[in-house]
Amino acid sequence: MIMDRLYNEALKSPVCVGLDTKIDFLPQYLKDKDWSTGEKITAFNKKIVDATADIAACYKMQIACYEALGLDGMKAYSETVKYVRKNGKIAIGDAKRGDITSTATQYAKGHFEGDFEVDILTVNAYMGEDAVSPYFPYIENNEKGLFVLLHTSNPSSRDFQELKLEEDGQKLYEAVGDKITEWGRPFIGESGYSAVGAVVGLTFPEEFEALQDQCPSTFFLVPGYGAQGGTGKDIANIFKKSRCAVINSSRGLITAHQKAETPCETEGFEALIREKTLAMKEDILKWL
Amino acid sequence: MIMDRLYNEALKSPVCVGLDTKIDFLPQYLKDKDWSTGEKITAFNKKIVDATADIAACYKMQIACYEALGLDGMKAYSETVKYVRKNGKIAIGDAKRGDITSTATQYAKGHFEGDFEVDILTVNAYMGEDAVSPYFPYIENNEKGLFVLLHTSNPSSRDFQELKLEEDGQKLYEAVGDKITEWGRPFIGESGYSAVGAVVGLTFPEEFEALQDQCPSTFFLVPGYGAQGGTGKDIANIFKKSRCAVINSSRGLITAHQKAETPCETEGFEALIREKTLAMKEDILKWL
Repeated sequence: MIMDRLYNEALKSPVCVGLDTKIDFLPQYLKDKDWSTGEKITAFNKKIVDATADIAACYKMQIACYEALGLDGMKAYSETVKYVRKNGKIAIGDAKRGDITSTATQYAKGHFEGDFEVDILTVNAYMGEDAVSPYFPYIENNEKGLFVLLHTSNPSSRDFQELKLEEDGQKLYEAVGDKITEWGRPFIGESGYSAVGAVVGLTFPEEFEALQDQCPSTFFLVPGYGAQGGTGKDIANIFKKSRCAVINSSRGLITAHQKAETPCETEGFEALIREKTLAMKEDILKWL
Repeated sequence: MIMDRLYNEALKSPVCVGLDTKIDFLPQYLKDKDWSTGEKITAFNKKIVDATADIAACYKMQIACYEALGLDGMKAYSETVKYVRKNGKIAIGDAKRGDITSTATQYAKGHFEGDFEVDILTVNAYMGEDAVSPYFPYIENNEKGLFVLLHTSNPSSRDFQELKLEEDGQKLYEAVGDKITEWGRPFIGESGYSAVGAVVGLTFPEEFEALQDQCPSTFFLVPGYGAQGGTGKDIANIFKKSRCAVINSSRGLITAHQKAETPCETEGFEALIREKTLAMKEDILKWL
């Protein structure tokens, strides 16, 4: 089961490398190649996978970065997810798709089969169960999984997610948490975690711990390290209760060669990204 | 301004033709061509645009149907949206994207520029204003628009959208309606409607009328005709108060050649789709 696999990977390293790649992030020697933008980005991503596969739990591809480049970008997305999986690593498609049943069925086909096949897809459940259940056959038959948006850490997450509900005083995101638990119940693996996971930001560590109690069989994708706020110590505190998450960092890792004391714009740049990935892993695990 | 353009088109015909095309929908002679699936779908879509451009307000492409086919499908999506716009018609990308600011900026680039450029994009605001505001520069400078998910008509829309809020007893979707009104205020055109519109289903006509009062400057995309429930009379009742919407039908129109008394699997199939589109237009307008 995919979430068992991810849980076991995360015990070794909780780091999810975010390949939310933009052309600006590439070292000059790749920018200078006589290739399309998508081809350059693919080459960059492959170098990163090669350099970090043994110290990363998984890779998350933010599909928006690829859609922004049109067809050439979608080809790069396809090549990247294929390369991650070919290397035996777990590929998370960060697509946050959400639509009614007949449409979600098409998204499931698009992201769990064919050119864009990933192991786990992020989805948005504003439309309720209909936006999630069409993926269940792929969970049952094809070792796939979901991360449903639960509580995000962006400033305007309060616009709706934090509104209090009349019936029981829960916040909206807590009601979403209950539904995620319910949807995931038939898909709990040996690790105790369900194939229906959740995306939760780390801006509010106390709230994260409350969700950990509320949703004990939910595995989390946490986009909270580095740029979005959370520290290694925050994460370790959560892990003392349960090893319930992978922690994503995108820009913080994949621009390490640009932000190093001695930036590297040539071949071998990926050594600096490996170094930063290792540092992130240790920054979390040293507190445990 | 795009929503003024759409409003004026909708006065003539409120019909939005949904090109949510699947290979099954094609007449046999197109299925038999020695082309890729995406190429066959593109040819089908172009025939439909040719046959209906003078009697449709706009075209809505459900991008999931194209993502389901991988890169070949995305090429068909690109060709289709380009063809719609080249014919002077309004293209709505039904993508329901929703993410934090930096990511939504990438989606805005992807769907308002380049290969996938449309005039209006559907978006999901579960993450709040951050998921919507990155599109505003394109509204201001590039004549673009949005339809934000408000109240959908699928069975599980009640899971979250209809939860009552503690503060004021509003339902969640009504709170979303207030935000859409607020976000749209700077972008109101001559028609009185804002470039920030909303997606509202027609399953509950009384609730639709209440939203019409609550959001008087919001133009609606209504996926409610035919398959999803609403009738021409329901819609006409709404239009008596204001001509605030385009009404989408997808399968109901683009499979007309298959469902006709004498099905057509050969060239000229599109005449039956035109006939059905005209019938839909008249089914709504005859009540006014």
